[in-house]
Amino acid sequence: MRARDLAEPFPTVDLDADALEAARAMAEARRPGLVVLGPDGRPRTVLPGSQVLRFAIPAYVQEDPFLARVYDEQSADNLFRQLSGKPVRALLPELEAQREELPIVDPDATSIEVAAVLARMHSPLAVVMDGPEVLGVITVSRLLRALLPADPASE
Amino acid sequence: MRARDLAEPFPTVDLDADALEAARAMAEARRPGLVVLGPDGRPRTVLPGSQVLRFAIPAYVQEDPFLARVYDEQSADNLFRQLSGKPVRALLPELEAQREELPIVDPDATSIEVAAVLARMHSPLAVVMDGPEVLGVITVSRLLRALLPADPASE
Repeated sequence: MRARDLAEPFPTVDLDADALEAARAMAEARRPGLVVLGPDGRPRTVLPGSQVLRFAIPAYVQEDPFLARVYDEQSADNLFRQLSGKPVRALLPELEAQREELPIVDPDATSIEVAAVLARMHSPLAVVMDGPEVLGVITVSRLLRALLPADPASE
Repeated sequence: MRARDLAEPFPTVDLDADALEAARAMAEARRPGLVVLGPDGRPRTVLPGSQVLRFAIPAYVQEDPFLARVYDEQSADNLFRQLSGKPVRALLPELEAQREELPIVDPDATSIEVAAVLARMHSPLAVVMDGPEVLGVITVSRLLRALLPADPASE
């Protein structure tokens, strides 16, 4: 199997997209993150969901479970409304450092090649690029379904 | 909303379970990892899929994309068959260091409390424990669906 056959759709978002819209896209896609595209349309990094939470929830609330417990739903709503009007790039403070962390593979890469890249980079996914175009993402569970030997118990 | 209402089923595995069976469970559940339970039945850590790949694929293949490309499907099968008979703990070399990294929350924790824990620990999920019993897992995307303000465009 080749990378093009293993690629699945995955939400992508521009660096300048609205952070609240990006968070909604992540929630609706039921994915733990989004692929963030740079101005050239190429993937730059992954925005993990925990980073959205770090941005919305004040540090003193993160550090104090009691404060977190007393937040009511209305106040919670207000915390997340602050994401609106902020660009996704504001949620990614160490963007330059992250440039090297996103595995990108060729549509013709073999499944073992993709697995080797994920293993080396400790990554749960690789982005499949066909020239300038994002074909999709290969997750580690999709890869394991392709690579694991057949289960004799299920035959 | 409380943690008990947000918990979703998630595959768990014992430290001494067969590593190939664990990899199959991860693949079938379409999750990027498994929750690993210690001998006392309490969650110890998460086994990420990339760690399964690191164990199966020799380091010299991880480092050399050319070698990875020439692996054929039969050889790939043999790599992953090596997981059989190995315990999950063998895939987790730094187990002691990981003990503190897995967020565990109470069934009565509020959604903001869970969000604060995920934010602080940079974690994509929290395990909901009711005494000694694992009720399930809360993912960051499930939490965002509960916490984000309603989208006026979809009303």
